[in-house]
Amino acid sequence: MDAEADRALRQLLRHTTVAALATLHQGEPAVSMVPYALLPDGRFVIHVSRLATHTQDMLAHTQVSLLVTAPVDVADTPLALPRVSVQGLASVCPPEAADHAAARAAYLARRPEAEELFGFGDFSLFLITPLSLRYVAGFGRAYAVTAGQYAALLRETG
Amino acid sequence: MDAEADRALRQLLRHTTVAALATLHQGEPAVSMVPYALLPDGRFVIHVSRLATHTQDMLAHTQVSLLVTAPVDVADTPLALPRVSVQGLASVCPPEAADHAAARAAYLARRPEAEELFGFGDFSLFLITPLSLRYVAGFGRAYAVTAGQYAALLRETG
Repeated sequence: MDAEADRALRQLLRHTTVAALATLHQGEPAVSMVPYALLPDGRFVIHVSRLATHTQDMLAHTQVSLLVTAPVDVADTPLALPRVSVQGLASVCPPEAADHAAARAAYLARRPEAEELFGFGDFSLFLITPLSLRYVAGFGRAYAVTAGQYAALLRETG
Repeated sequence: MDAEADRALRQLLRHTTVAALATLHQGEPAVSMVPYALLPDGRFVIHVSRLATHTQDMLAHTQVSLLVTAPVDVADTPLALPRVSVQGLASVCPPEAADHAAARAAYLARRPEAEELFGFGDFSLFLITPLSLRYVAGFGRAYAVTAGQYAALLRETG
């Protein structure tokens, strides 16, 4: 990817509100919506209820996939919509974890209205560490992005 | 669900442009974006390239999941966004299939710009038959929808 594609991927990830989270549910793929935030190192932060199926799925099987898609009005046709699919590993981030304060702060910076949910006993933070990504910048413009390339491009601003 | 929720689910499905498609990829969940259309009976129509990973995944393992999410500006907060997760079975719909003409017409009615892709040898129509759905109408308002209930509510207009 060139610097322009790197920048566009950063903007897509930093400005989008929700992702589609695919988990393995009893051996089958299952997809649901999750609001997310990013840690500075590019890990995804989500805040989910233990009562939700996707949370139980992540506890039983840690590999997941996330899709972040630009708003439909960004492109003339759906196949030109910028989007990124992420393969990653999910892990719970309990209050005693070293990353918890940073994850909570990152999440609440994006979703201040979620603060009251932190008082609910069934909600937990999870971190999703990207293993590989596939970024589609537009029609026919797809890039494979390694975890190392992703971490490097996330360190830039703008 | 009441008539108002039925109507809102119909509108969500009929007016949204793209879905997140989760497939089983080498035993792991993988999610990608697909434009879609609906047949009158509620089956999803997608048009995908055999060169794409999700297409190979569907050929190898037919159970998939789709997520259709309302645009983020529909709700004040992401957790209130209307969305529906569908568990379904995917099958290729070749030109000689009885459903092909209807599927092609439904798809092109929604995505007229895709017509040229029908001339590409690697693109095929797939149908996804819903087995069950989970509709979230807003924060804390979730409904389990059976295939039978779904077919019935799709028969209504408006």
